[in-house]
Amino acid sequence: MATYTAPVDDIAFLLTRVFDFDATMAGLPGFEEVNAELAVSVLEEAGKFAAGVLEPLNRPGDEEGCTLENGLVTTPKGVAEAYRAFAEAGWCSLSGDPEYGGQGLPRVLQILLDEMLSSANLSFGLFPGLTRGAVEAIGHHAGAELKATYLPKMISGEWTGAMALTEASAGTDLGLLSTRAVPNGDGSFAITGTKIFISSGDQDFGGNVIHLVLARLPDAPKGVKGISLFLAPKFLVNADGSLGGRNGMSVGALEHKMGIHAQPTCVMNYDGATGWLVGEPGRGLNAMFTMMNAERLFVGIQGLGIAEAANQKAVAYARERLQGHGADGTPGPVAIINHPDVRKMLLCGRAFADAARALAVWTALQMDIADRHPDEAVRREADALVALLTPVVKAAFTDFGFETAVASQQVLGGHGYIREWGMEQYVRDARIAQIYEGTNGVQAMDLVTRKLGLEGGKLPQRFFGLIKADLDAALPSAGAALVTPMAEALARLEGATARLAANGGAIEAGAAATDYLRLFALVAFGWMWVRMAAAAAGHAATPVEQRKAALARFFMERMLPQTVGLDAALAYGAPSLMALHADAF
Amino acid sequence: MATYTAPVDDIAFLLTRVFDFDATMAGLPGFEEVNAELAVSVLEEAGKFAAGVLEPLNRPGDEEGCTLENGLVTTPKGVAEAYRAFAEAGWCSLSGDPEYGGQGLPRVLQILLDEMLSSANLSFGLFPGLTRGAVEAIGHHAGAELKATYLPKMISGEWTGAMALTEASAGTDLGLLSTRAVPNGDGSFAITGTKIFISSGDQDFGGNVIHLVLARLPDAPKGVKGISLFLAPKFLVNADGSLGGRNGMSVGALEHKMGIHAQPTCVMNYDGATGWLVGEPGRGLNAMFTMMNAERLFVGIQGLGIAEAANQKAVAYARERLQGHGADGTPGPVAIINHPDVRKMLLCGRAFADAARALAVWTALQMDIADRHPDEAVRREADALVALLTPVVKAAFTDFGFETAVASQQVLGGHGYIREWGMEQYVRDARIAQIYEGTNGVQAMDLVTRKLGLEGGKLPQRFFGLIKADLDAALPSAGAALVTPMAEALARLEGATARLAANGGAIEAGAAATDYLRLFALVAFGWMWVRMAAAAAGHAATPVEQRKAALARFFMERMLPQTVGLDAALAYGAPSLMALHADAF
Repeated sequence: MATYTAPVDDIAFLLTRVFDFDATMAGLPGFEEVNAELAVSVLEEAGKFAAGVLEPLNRPGDEEGCTLENGLVTTPKGVAEAYRAFAEAGWCSLSGDPEYGGQGLPRVLQILLDEMLSSANLSFGLFPGLTRGAVEAIGHHAGAELKATYLPKMISGEWTGAMALTEASAGTDLGLLSTRAVPNGDGSFAITGTKIFISSGDQDFGGNVIHLVLARLPDAPKGVKGISLFLAPKFLVNADGSLGGRNGMSVGALEHKMGIHAQPTCVMNYDGATGWLVGEPGRGLNAMFTMMNAERLFVGIQGLGIAEAANQKAVAYARERLQGHGADGTPGPVAIINHPDVRKMLLCGRAFADAARALAVWTALQMDIADRHPDEAVRREADALVALLTPVVKAAFTDFGFETAVASQQVLGGHGYIREWGMEQYVRDARIAQIYEGTNGVQAMDLVTRKLGLEGGKLPQRFFGLIKADLDAALPSAGAALVTPMAEALARLEGATARLAANGGAIEAGAAATDYLRLFALVAFGWMWVRMAAAAAGHAATPVEQRKAALARFFMERMLPQTVGLDAALAYGAPSLMALHADAF
Repeated sequence: MATYTAPVDDIAFLLTRVFDFDATMAGLPGFEEVNAELAVSVLEEAGKFAAGVLEPLNRPGDEEGCTLENGLVTTPKGVAEAYRAFAEAGWCSLSGDPEYGGQGLPRVLQILLDEMLSSANLSFGLFPGLTRGAVEAIGHHAGAELKATYLPKMISGEWTGAMALTEASAGTDLGLLSTRAVPNGDGSFAITGTKIFISSGDQDFGGNVIHLVLARLPDAPKGVKGISLFLAPKFLVNADGSLGGRNGMSVGALEHKMGIHAQPTCVMNYDGATGWLVGEPGRGLNAMFTMMNAERLFVGIQGLGIAEAANQKAVAYARERLQGHGADGTPGPVAIINHPDVRKMLLCGRAFADAARALAVWTALQMDIADRHPDEAVRREADALVALLTPVVKAAFTDFGFETAVASQQVLGGHGYIREWGMEQYVRDARIAQIYEGTNGVQAMDLVTRKLGLEGGKLPQRFFGLIKADLDAALPSAGAALVTPMAEALARLEGATARLAANGGAIEAGAAATDYLRLFALVAFGWMWVRMAAAAAGHAATPVEQRKAALARFFMERMLPQTVGLDAALAYGAPSLMALHADAF
């Protein structure tokens, strides 16, 4: 079976030809030294680690799974060693705040590293990914003492992090949660309750596990306004920073899951666990959303990562597997990559992955601008664009990522269904990304009910304006055959957006949400294809650039037309969804 | 967790209101006594068996799986007993030929029983399903002696059957297979070779396992014309019909699969196994296709069955799970079935399952007509329609079935990803149906390259003519809001069909195949929705009939518009699929 190769050439193409990475970095204080050459060389090393160390653990880890014995979690053979090597090589701290020992590199690099981790080993990638989310929440909302105690060791990766939100009866609706936090009188709180689905809830790598727990203070109001965020470590930390005794928390069970078997997803029991408030009382959800937004982008990238890996392996298989005669009359057996229908499955995956990576880089650039640009107005504008794109990246990348995993599995026929080939694991692993960190339905609701209304409802038009400007600029090089269908698709999206704005109301929004998000994502992917095609045109052709023109055309002709159907369905609105009584289904 | 309920009310609606089942049966010699009342009462009992005996074994069977020790296959606890009870109750022989002890009931009943088995326990359903396929091939192609020896016990279910086609290097392209059959000089043959992916290759129910094996005679030409079909039993059969010694075949291994864990999918070694020719030498593929066509419809029904079960459970969960406030302003928490986006997931599954069941019944009626109608021209016409619909039922039912399983899992959020809830098993089990008995890509190729050309290329027009006549007839009762979008969708399908006929050639056909099949299926589903809506209109409303109008509208407004996008994509044809060199992917 072919092994994964990190898409470094494609990354270099994006950073040098499609986005003016060097110029953007030069304008961001602290990133003056960062350029595409540095980024590519860092990511080349990351790719080697992902392909050489993490991917070989992926299939065995799925088979072995995690175990819980006498309260101790054991991850599959090799995972703990790989994690320690990963942290020691500095990969945990790549984009971390230099004030706490991080390397302070841009989000763009982080997101591309995340893709490689997700391609190589989704279960593994959740450890640094969740730690980073916890670091964001602590960095933004915790007091100086908590930051000083926890951030350096979390950023270095010596300690890991976990988000403890969900309870059995409180998932999407966190307002229903019942975990309690009672003041101990010394500034700390005693946390009691049970949380489920806690990724990276424990590990056997050593160090500490820092839980961010949502809980209610005594006399807190019902609903989301009564929720506060607490930091509760697995081991209490002594004044000198060394590990003290076990805190009052334990792993009640490991969840039995469809996939990500190498990831210890825990039922966590907090039995008067000592914790400290992060942010204001009653503002826990706000603090948690700092973490959630970072995680949502990360989860979107997981969809991309799985798609990239699954597509690579399906391509390799299709080049070697001989079945049937050629559609052009070549006597058989021929490699199945020559069959048009097999090509279609492979091209759909590739056209998604390349566009998604481009959109991820664009989004991460906006994040870097939002973090660092000297002009506050520019920062604010970039931040709004990230907010707009976050649900799209999370939901569309994981939906198309899952579809790509399924199509890639299909290329292998019966072998795709057999565990030894590894393709079915991609499908099982990819599936979780559509569910956790807010289901994709929740993402779509976030897009239509919150994000479209930002900047007084003008944000979508501003975003569409960026696309239009790029289409105009690309027309001479990319050509009308690519730009015209995209302009038409954009017009559909604008129309659907205007209808939503005109027919306000939660029912119409909810009925439109998932179709609208997919329409939005297809337009965003098409935008990236126009930019990539324009960037590839007329340059001394590398293999990457040769590929772009063909893929851009394929996307416009065979994928973008989905927007016509989505637009037509959206135009009918909510009534047919709401007609049936709940008892009549 | 809710349990499965067989859709008997819906079946009664189809047989009495939508299709004139009684009149059709009255015109078929041998079925004069069959009517809807009988059919519903038989299927009510079948539903009880499926829900009461088979479904409780589904989750435990997935967890336990099958084992192979010392060459002996063990199925999960309870499966063997359930199988024997199933056979003893007569369910194996339902549609079997009365000449060999079958009950001779119509295909319509068989296909509805198959749906229930697939809903309750897909792994289990493969045992009687494959036996029936083997019975068809033997019945059509074997000599009198083989028929007399094997058919009675296979039809009763005392013995089971298996299809041994695939080899490691010969899947879709069976012409590449290398298993050999050498004459023993006594009319029997010695079969030697290894087959993979053999469903029901062995069992621990007792009795015999009858393998139909594709192999090459000495000096057979290369390719498909050198393939013959052989019957090779696990135990040789004595002259008195009792079981003799073990034949020269063994289970080399059980495949490790993504799902259907309670089904022993075998690697089979034939080491000079004694077999007998079924049909003419070199005509093995022809004989095997008798089996395959029956199996392809059966596999399509599996997609429907899983969708029905998964949708039922998702609906039950959505009625009980409380999260968030109502889109209409109802303070929360409300049952999530009230959320528009959750409704959309549930309605998509329901709108598929109801339409697919209707189309399955229509197709099975054509099979019954093709089997029994006194007029040969009518038989031939019906048979051609079955041939046209077979790849559509196989591929579209399993694709939409898988999508329904995924969407139903999504309704449960994180709980959907946890094994205990059973939803993720539906996804894993449903996935195989898109792959086996010819991948869905192969089905699509069969549709565009063979089936569209039947009756000198006039068959599609004849089929579309049936739809048109039904649309015209339904207009007064179903209304223009349903009929007009369907007429437009049908026009799209006709246009796509005409383009394919005009731009002949394997490349264009291959590039169109999967999109074309989906377009075809959506139109066929819409046709069924118009018929169901018309049948429901103006009748004293039962819960089933109330549901039909709402679902028909939902389908037309939110699902049928996919045809617009498919048509637009198809219009671009093959060039963008073929541009990229195989090395450049």
